[in-house]
Amino acid sequence: MTGWLTIVGLGPGPEEWLTPQARRDLAEATDLVGYFPYVDRVPPGPQVRHASDNRVELDRARFALDLAAQGRKVAVVSGGDPGVFAMAAAVFEALDDPDAPPAWRTLDLRVDPGVSAMQAAAARAGAPLGHDFCAISLSDNLKPWDVVLKRLRLAAEADFVIALYNPISRARPWQLGAAFDALRAIRSPDTPVVLGRAVGREDEVMTITSLGAVQAEQADMKTLVIIGASHTRLVPRPNGQPWVYTPRHYRG
Amino acid sequence: MTGWLTIVGLGPGPEEWLTPQARRDLAEATDLVGYFPYVDRVPPGPQVRHASDNRVELDRARFALDLAAQGRKVAVVSGGDPGVFAMAAAVFEALDDPDAPPAWRTLDLRVDPGVSAMQAAAARAGAPLGHDFCAISLSDNLKPWDVVLKRLRLAAEADFVIALYNPISRARPWQLGAAFDALRAIRSPDTPVVLGRAVGREDEVMTITSLGAVQAEQADMKTLVIIGASHTRLVPRPNGQPWVYTPRHYRG
Repeated sequence: MTGWLTIVGLGPGPEEWLTPQARRDLAEATDLVGYFPYVDRVPPGPQVRHASDNRVELDRARFALDLAAQGRKVAVVSGGDPGVFAMAAAVFEALDDPDAPPAWRTLDLRVDPGVSAMQAAAARAGAPLGHDFCAISLSDNLKPWDVVLKRLRLAAEADFVIALYNPISRARPWQLGAAFDALRAIRSPDTPVVLGRAVGREDEVMTITSLGAVQAEQADMKTLVIIGASHTRLVPRPNGQPWVYTPRHYRG
Repeated sequence: MTGWLTIVGLGPGPEEWLTPQARRDLAEATDLVGYFPYVDRVPPGPQVRHASDNRVELDRARFALDLAAQGRKVAVVSGGDPGVFAMAAAVFEALDDPDAPPAWRTLDLRVDPGVSAMQAAAARAGAPLGHDFCAISLSDNLKPWDVVLKRLRLAAEADFVIALYNPISRARPWQLGAAFDALRAIRSPDTPVVLGRAVGREDEVMTITSLGAVQAEQADMKTLVIIGASHTRLVPRPNGQPWVYTPRHYRG
């Protein structure tokens, strides 16, 4: 049995952010499994492509594990870093099922890390993640909204920089506005906010605004939102929007 | 004036995690500036090397900005992702100084993101960062210890997975033990803990343990510590230590 399964991080989009490890594993795979926009990103080649819709992560993981158990070399492709709000957790969930076929447990299984969306947005904006931070998915498909709100409030109280994944979608239109409202109750309206949309891709849009001014409608499914800590600062840039950075030092 | 300054993320160490963007910018630079172990990682070439000691980040940033303002092509090299507890914030701090030379403000300045230590450790361990998480530097050179403790307690209350950077050093021997004690007061002793030492390098050591069992002495300067959330789980692996993952779903 020569099959393997590697969960490959494609990074935020451009070739220049794809690691050599990911490139090699994509080239050596016999099968690509993933959400169709990610499968479409892999350059044409001899691999069999198994593209699926969004929100079927666990089915996709089981399918990929079965393929690998049959001896195929399977790359499960994921945007950004597969370990951060992405496919790696789904594969381990499938593996953790008490009814999982024993053959899955003995597979050659690996995760290829990648640059995640918050890192790409941060790099374009300056260094907003330069001090303690947290990353929260706003999706209440995966956890109760009360948990999201509680985490936002505790994160604001801890004075973390806050990165929001999955901020808004057609099925979840009001959550981002509610999150901004919850943070406005604690943090100053001057707090810098970064909206990094499709960073590294053709339709990239970077917006630097403030917690007082930002509107949920400025974000979409492709947007990564970063809300500064109390000491996050702006530095003027000659052409265009200011840099945003969070100093390494914190006086408390 | 053709100078530029790029803050380049080298990733955790191995070539296979170095992005093509970082590789290109290192090759095109006339000057490399950084902490000496990072400068040493760049393969031999014609670039002038300016290696400095640890904890002189702001001096190093000013030196690099001066070089670029003189027309040099300067790569400031940083381990992991320069935006995460690394050199990018120091460069923007230098730029933000009211006494900074005006020439610095008009420089062609960029950040190349990279795979950070927590992502490399997470990839080796499974998917511990698969749900909401935070990253905290334990260094109290940069902030009061009370702030660190408060953040640890709020992060535990929020039930974040917690990644600890700069966990321990000769000058800061007791802080990691105090952090474990603070977390043991809130989180179960069964909570999985990942110690990822020098991940991707020759001296890599991965340890999977629990909050009840872990000792600060098991970590050193090269270690990235990940403490699970309440629902972080273990999956047996046929050879060796179990996988660690945090399910995407959270019941609260």
